[in-house]
Amino acid sequence: MAGGAAGEAAQAEVLRQLRSTFGPAVLETERGSTGLYALLGQVGLLERRCRNPVLVAGTASAGAKLALAQALGKHDTVGLDLVAECVNAVLARGALPLFLVAHLGIGEAESPTALPIVKGIAKGCRQADCALLGTSLEPRGGHLVGSAVGMVERARLLDGPAAARPGDLVLGITAGGLPPAAAQLVRHLLVDAGGLRLDDQPELACPLGEELLRPARIYVRAVRAVLERYRVKGVVHAVAPVADGGLVGSVAGALGRRCVARLERAALPRVPLLDLVRRVTGMADDEMARTFPMGVGMAVVVAPFYAKAAIRRIRRAGERAAVIGEVVAGSGPAVVLA
Amino acid sequence: MAGGAAGEAAQAEVLRQLRSTFGPAVLETERGSTGLYALLGQVGLLERRCRNPVLVAGTASAGAKLALAQALGKHDTVGLDLVAECVNAVLARGALPLFLVAHLGIGEAESPTALPIVKGIAKGCRQADCALLGTSLEPRGGHLVGSAVGMVERARLLDGPAAARPGDLVLGITAGGLPPAAAQLVRHLLVDAGGLRLDDQPELACPLGEELLRPARIYVRAVRAVLERYRVKGVVHAVAPVADGGLVGSVAGALGRRCVARLERAALPRVPLLDLVRRVTGMADDEMARTFPMGVGMAVVVAPFYAKAAIRRIRRAGERAAVIGEVVAGSGPAVVLA
Repeated sequence: MAGGAAGEAAQAEVLRQLRSTFGPAVLETERGSTGLYALLGQVGLLERRCRNPVLVAGTASAGAKLALAQALGKHDTVGLDLVAECVNAVLARGALPLFLVAHLGIGEAESPTALPIVKGIAKGCRQADCALLGTSLEPRGGHLVGSAVGMVERARLLDGPAAARPGDLVLGITAGGLPPAAAQLVRHLLVDAGGLRLDDQPELACPLGEELLRPARIYVRAVRAVLERYRVKGVVHAVAPVADGGLVGSVAGALGRRCVARLERAALPRVPLLDLVRRVTGMADDEMARTFPMGVGMAVVVAPFYAKAAIRRIRRAGERAAVIGEVVAGSGPAVVLA
Repeated sequence: MAGGAAGEAAQAEVLRQLRSTFGPAVLETERGSTGLYALLGQVGLLERRCRNPVLVAGTASAGAKLALAQALGKHDTVGLDLVAECVNAVLARGALPLFLVAHLGIGEAESPTALPIVKGIAKGCRQADCALLGTSLEPRGGHLVGSAVGMVERARLLDGPAAARPGDLVLGITAGGLPPAAAQLVRHLLVDAGGLRLDDQPELACPLGEELLRPARIYVRAVRAVLERYRVKGVVHAVAPVADGGLVGSVAGALGRRCVARLERAALPRVPLLDLVRRVTGMADDEMARTFPMGVGMAVVVAPFYAKAAIRRIRRAGERAAVIGEVVAGSGPAVVLA
């Protein structure tokens, strides 16, 4: 990050941040960019209840949020977005994240912002109950990329299309800030094309830039509360983080071809920022729902009998959730907004 | 990569590339950016001879080589560099890579180059005998980042400083092209500051740009040939990929504080490109060795009795190697060039 004593102090602080995320499975190391994770505890688990462990690995970027962070000079939350993006890929398969590694590329002039960014990643990993095993820094570019690795018993892998069935209910966990790609698109529509400025405050509770930068939420604990409770019963049929493709595309990706999800417009959280996008751009409701999360951060498809209990558990884990639709038999468009 | 049918064809080709790297442990999936790796076969191994498995995760970038690839319009080798960087972090701990995930950020205008880049990553993964579990693409930036995950029995973890001892010999595996950061630096020294052009051919076998873009080699098979042969005897005391910090810094990082490595200048491979750097910049030999790999891609510290056999095994795996120095007792600078 910097040469000499300042560089060493920064490096020591990075290691402190990594350590703040370590559980007993992590073997401490003095190197920053490589980490060690002992599977023994996990294998112990396996012997009891996880006979065929599968590692789930996914990679994601929060570069679009980093660009916003740089424009606004506020760097402490973009790490939360990175962790959210990375662990979502793991949660979507019914796995829980074990650890994450991250790579940050920023120009030399921006190097003082590296530490707040790493602190944000470490905070996100603590929220996700996973270890930040390593970070690497490149003195060029403007990118923030991470990879998460999780583990799940093979028999409990959520395999997408196969699992949802007619009668299931779709729960929506209320979103935090927009995910990176959506935030970038809204910035483009409202600022580059719409003539607004990042420090305008048009019918929002805070300036536009601040609202765009607001981090996505990390749903590991909420999803785990549901997955672990119903370990045997297989009550959870799909977990769909809402990302590219908006609410409609994300839920559709988690459904089989013989199912349709009928989502209730009235059940979706109101999002003042998206109301603003609708007004400024004149975008139709259906296109909005194919493009943006519509206030839903994560959709969870469950057997109807357990919906209320699952919502209770999600709430106890600190998130808001509600039934936003149901799965019905049929073909055609996989998701209908009613 | 592109919309419509062309986009779908490109996506199908990416999946074909991923599949070309899959072994029996990979569970096939239709999603590109997340992958599944079944540990069962590995756990089977564990039961026999690996009782305390440790996952090793590292992340690395080949962004500097991507910038060169874009300048030269040649995109098929930069993926090899990414894989080399990523698996080196895993090899350095005595682990063998299981899988890799990669993230590519390039502007929309560059999107036709995504496929050759992904093909290069897949080729590298095949050379590294590891699976390319997923790739994600971002339509912005100019970065190429990957993460590799490997596994090793805890008792066989190479823990750096503890293991090397006086009397050990240092083997040098001959390098391929420069790693990304070194290539970027040479480009800066010779082109930006030195007035040469990428298509000049100053006393090299090929134009300067081509030489800078030449990919690093992937040493998984060579290192495995040595590690697996001497599974019980603990003959290999350190594995040091030569990267940032040059030959001196990289070997020093793998030695204990009570050891000094005495490397023989005369034993190092000649590298015409670095001779050119020396002539153009007037950089002193010692600084060269603290900055550049000096023709060594990977240093392997072994007990002296086994050095010849280890070299034979490395050669059989298709790499060139030689004794380039020895470990002696002492303190002070960790590496001395004699």
